Amino acid sequence: MTGERTLRDVGEFAVIERIVSTSQLPVEVAEVGPGDDAAVLAATDGRVIACVDVLVEGRHFRRDWSSAIDVGKRAAAASLSDVNAMGGRATSVLVGLVAPADLPLAWVTEMAAGLTQECTQAGAVLAGGDTTEGDAIVISVTALGSLDGRAPITRAGAQPGDRIAVCGRLGWAAAGLAVLGRGFRSPKALVDAHRYPQIDYDAGRRAAQSGARAMIDVSDGLIADLGHIAEASGVQIDITTEGNLAFEVPEPMQAAAAAYNVDARGWMLTGGDDHALVAAFPAGSALPEGFIEIGAVRARADEDRDSSTTFVTVDGAPWGDGSAGSGGFAHFG
Amino acid sequence: MTGERTLRDVGEFAVIERIVSTSQLPVEVAEVGPGDDAAVLAATDGRVIACVDVLVEGRHFRRDWSSAIDVGKRAAAASLSDVNAMGGRATSVLVGLVAPADLPLAWVTEMAAGLTQECTQAGAVLAGGDTTEGDAIVISVTALGSLDGRAPITRAGAQPGDRIAVCGRLGWAAAGLAVLGRGFRSPKALVDAHRYPQIDYDAGRRAAQSGARAMIDVSDGLIADLGHIAEASGVQIDITTEGNLAFEVPEPMQAAAAAYNVDARGWMLTGGDDHALVAAFPAGSALPEGFIEIGAVRARADEDRDSSTTFVTVDGAPWGDGSAGSGGFAHFG
Repeated sequence: MTGERTLRDVGEFAVIERIVSTSQLPVEVAEVGPGDDAAVLAATDGRVIACVDVLVEGRHFRRDWSSAIDVGKRAAAASLSDVNAMGGRATSVLVGLVAPADLPLAWVTEMAAGLTQECTQAGAVLAGGDTTEGDAIVISVTALGSLDGRAPITRAGAQPGDRIAVCGRLGWAAAGLAVLGRGFRSPKALVDAHRYPQIDYDAGRRAAQSGARAMIDVSDGLIADLGHIAEASGVQIDITTEGNLAFEVPEPMQAAAAAYNVDARGWMLTGGDDHALVAAFPAGSALPEGFIEIGAVRARADEDRDSSTTFVTVDGAPWGDGSAGSGGFAHFG
Repeated sequence: MTGERTLRDVGEFAVIERIVSTSQLPVEVAEVGPGDDAAVLAATDGRVIACVDVLVEGRHFRRDWSSAIDVGKRAAAASLSDVNAMGGRATSVLVGLVAPADLPLAWVTEMAAGLTQECTQAGAVLAGGDTTEGDAIVISVTALGSLDGRAPITRAGAQPGDRIAVCGRLGWAAAGLAVLGRGFRSPKALVDAHRYPQIDYDAGRRAAQSGARAMIDVSDGLIADLGHIAEASGVQIDITTEGNLAFEVPEPMQAAAAAYNVDARGWMLTGGDDHALVAAFPAGSALPEGFIEIGAVRARADEDRDSSTTFVTVDGAPWGDGSAGSGGFAHFG
């Protein structure tokens, strides 16, 4: 667009400023905020949760499919969700942005607004950033968080007899991507789910307070991510989809599946990016609000201990043809 | 190379594993280490220093100029140095890697070894990471650190009368880049300085313990970075190069400057990437080991308070032609 200001016009420092200055930093959160060599952030219980996720244009998002605000929300959500999955509360975010010099400044400003919106929803602040020039847009988001004195919920604590329960949507983002990939823009609810997830940022804490013993967020796909819990915990996980509320195919997904002649359950079982939480709770314990039971943990049979087969079954059998393994999304695959 | 294994051959998870598994995590540093949704790291004084830096292939490094180990060291150093510049001690690092699927696996393994080497030098561990596919290599490094109960040294505390002192090399990396850019590989000491910096990771703490009131690491260039201190502190900084040990042109730089018919002082005053520390100390205080006095802080003249001129002078005058401003390296420029 003629006259539209690009990153080249404003220089690096103004870009960083635009990204970080949209968020306010209360002193109890940040002793030193954006604009110095580093931020100094509160870690009140003497520990900090930390993780990083990277989004790449063309791989995780397309500018013709998602607005800059959507991309910012999605980039923040990917990392904030990992803090949620540890049973923590996100406190702050650092962003590393690679962008072409001819990118409109407005795109960066709106992306930063999306980042800030998602941070605010999770209770976190944007605390710092770095911007540099590159051919494709890359957004690296580091999320930091607090456990507020609680123990972290890792992938490794599931025990035989535990109930497996899920909180959040399954397959919506994958279905939305399928819609967009076929050149359509509706059902809009699915397309929007691809653009950015709807995350309950309190669910991780509720699960921790209800005694969750293992937890993960669904970013690779339900079966793949349950496989991570099964592997880390040394157990077998069996899930039941038949007659289960969590696997009732929602209306827009039914419509898309019918139109494309695919099984919507594939989206729900192997689609990532909705960032639902899935956790193991002790048998007999009450599930926290928003969690729906989908299966159970059992000990591995002796003959399975050293096998490389998947440790997750769906309605009594491995998902897919068996050789496909745990399904889900693997980079460089 | 025929038969050489690439990232495509091993898949995402193996790549992350190779990056993070080369470092050992003591339990007093990490309650949860790599391989879960997030790491849980010690923050013993109830605060955490946090910053992110991004390196892009073709802009910050070239694979034909730098080995994978060099790139890893340099990527880690950029962030670890920012923790140093706050007067802190780096404790851990998270890495986000974007890489093409046809990148040799060995390159990633060696880059990770370089990251780990530099982390070890700073006393930090590699605590987590994310890998994703993209056309160009992008390495995002988040460094976390501790102030061990001390106050952070920001850019904002310099006061009129303070002594300005520098610790570390000036201009070596810029001179090395000039050598490589002209197609040469020697003087090797300069070329090596471009490949990765030599950082004294204890210097930030020494400065803090000696009462430093403002500090920054030289990543944009000495004048530009002193400009950041001057701006944040609301002061004027005058540096003296004539007869000053810190500005004696070292032998390899003399040789290169003579060969290319340039003024080596340009490299020393505007070259970044050596990550020297420059700090303001109270008048009359003893400078910590390794710091050399290069100038002084004074109050801004009334007529300068609202002007946009540079607040740094070199031997009594602005550097360069005056209109070039503070010099140094600006992205998207």
